[in-house]
Amino acid sequence: MPLSSHREFETALAFAAESVERTMDRLLPSGTSGEARVFDAMRYSSMGGGKRLRAFFVLAGATLFKVRTLPALRTASAIEFVHAYSLIHDDLPAMDDDDLRRGKPTCHKQFDEATAILAGDALQALAFEVLAHEDTHGDPAVRTALVSELAKAAGARGMVGGQMLDLLAEQDDSDQSIGAITHLQRLKTGALISFSCTAGAVLGKASESLRMALSGYAHDLGLAFQIVDDLLDIEGSAEELGKATGKDQAAGKATFVSILGVERARAQAGMLARQAAAHLEPFGEAADLLRQATEFVVARRT
Amino acid sequence: MPLSSHREFETALAFAAESVERTMDRLLPSGTSGEARVFDAMRYSSMGGGKRLRAFFVLAGATLFKVRTLPALRTASAIEFVHAYSLIHDDLPAMDDDDLRRGKPTCHKQFDEATAILAGDALQALAFEVLAHEDTHGDPAVRTALVSELAKAAGARGMVGGQMLDLLAEQDDSDQSIGAITHLQRLKTGALISFSCTAGAVLGKASESLRMALSGYAHDLGLAFQIVDDLLDIEGSAEELGKATGKDQAAGKATFVSILGVERARAQAGMLARQAAAHLEPFGEAADLLRQATEFVVARRT
Repeated sequence: MPLSSHREFETALAFAAESVERTMDRLLPSGTSGEARVFDAMRYSSMGGGKRLRAFFVLAGATLFKVRTLPALRTASAIEFVHAYSLIHDDLPAMDDDDLRRGKPTCHKQFDEATAILAGDALQALAFEVLAHEDTHGDPAVRTALVSELAKAAGARGMVGGQMLDLLAEQDDSDQSIGAITHLQRLKTGALISFSCTAGAVLGKASESLRMALSGYAHDLGLAFQIVDDLLDIEGSAEELGKATGKDQAAGKATFVSILGVERARAQAGMLARQAAAHLEPFGEAADLLRQATEFVVARRT
Repeated sequence: MPLSSHREFETALAFAAESVERTMDRLLPSGTSGEARVFDAMRYSSMGGGKRLRAFFVLAGATLFKVRTLPALRTASAIEFVHAYSLIHDDLPAMDDDDLRRGKPTCHKQFDEATAILAGDALQALAFEVLAHEDTHGDPAVRTALVSELAKAAGARGMVGGQMLDLLAEQDDSDQSIGAITHLQRLKTGALISFSCTAGAVLGKASESLRMALSGYAHDLGLAFQIVDDLLDIEGSAEELGKATGKDQAAGKATFVSILGVERARAQAGMLARQAAAHLEPFGEAADLLRQATEFVVARRT
């Protein structure tokens, strides 16, 4: 992409990251009571790191419908809390058993397994508490819609279902077709990305057709994002990524790259990113940042 | 208590258990897709067992305000899902490391640790999905109030905070005063019991003073319940309880019983139960079932 829009996007992404972290900081519990150990673990794993791409999607989507900043930032925080909880639990020894995340020891390494399980549990509860609070939207019907959508995206038919499939994918008799991997990723990462991209439309009480346009964008972009993740897992270094690489290969798990090969996977990611951008047509220039995001997702190195 | 009211209460408790299980059965995901393993684990651990005392509290509270059955049953189901998730996670090897629950192998024994973690996570999300759905109440303001209250009761300043304290209580330098144990239990089990007892008032848009009366009831009854739990941990048999006993003692954890002794602990539970019943005065005879519950909690053997 041209350097100017590249800069514009990176500025917007950095702005989203900074402002959502400030909001998350205020929403996270703190104190010195006995149970504060779990507060510390929640904070350790949700603050200070990550691209905050989901928060960016919420904020960029919200501007399309002239949603005020505070509701958008609170919604973005809720999603980042769910994302953080999912990473804490995914990193546990019984799951992916990772020691490193965003260049820091994972939660169970820094604290202990029990604290990590509890910190994840509490972050999930916090996300729903934040969405249900009147500061998130004056209309309770909007707040319940947000709660409902996030619960579905995070639950057994969404993110958790995807993680279940991912664990089963290490078994020899698992379905390793491109259809099965696409289904897995739509659940594991796609559901939450989809909620991030459409949350602004919910907050802005947008028409069903505009919400669906953003849903289509999220659908294609989420898959592109995952294919690039698979490429980085093979091509990237642990130093750049701040987490272990080559794990899928070592576990004998099929990925988009192991099935399609590097060249076709990269082409597929590019095609999906362009397809994602095409969904933004109804919004005109107002959606330029979301357009730039499609190029970023394909070009990113971390 | 007199035999007749004893029977009346036991009938009401059995009715609550049966009807909430039917509702939970309909709300739990099912299917044969790859991710169905997590559906199975959710069902395994949330169905077919337990006294369903929390569900009873919701239903008995709801009748005070003439709340329809479906909203009460859906709210009760949400609470039972959160309760079930907390048991699954508490039983994990990194937490209390229990093999037996309600006379069956615990979730991670029946399935595996990763599946158990995910089943718990998905049950928590399901609880909020159920509360946010319009079938739970026609007024979205009531639904967000339920979501908000449950999120607080389940989160870092509620149930999860209490579990954190409970884990830390095994350390030598932990505060083992009666005040510290009371604080722990108010969070660990009290917060969810309190939400169960007051949910009917939220559903029925009751006055603040009536809601507070039920909150006072829950406060005292929750503590009585926990003291009896501690007594049963010492006096009960694993066969009767369907779970391991004597664990607190073995772990060197202070309990109400280890500090007060059996006699004074039993007297304290009885006193709290009578105090709980006193909070029900504003409701007259309509609260007789909740009154009987206070006697049941003290007299129970499992």
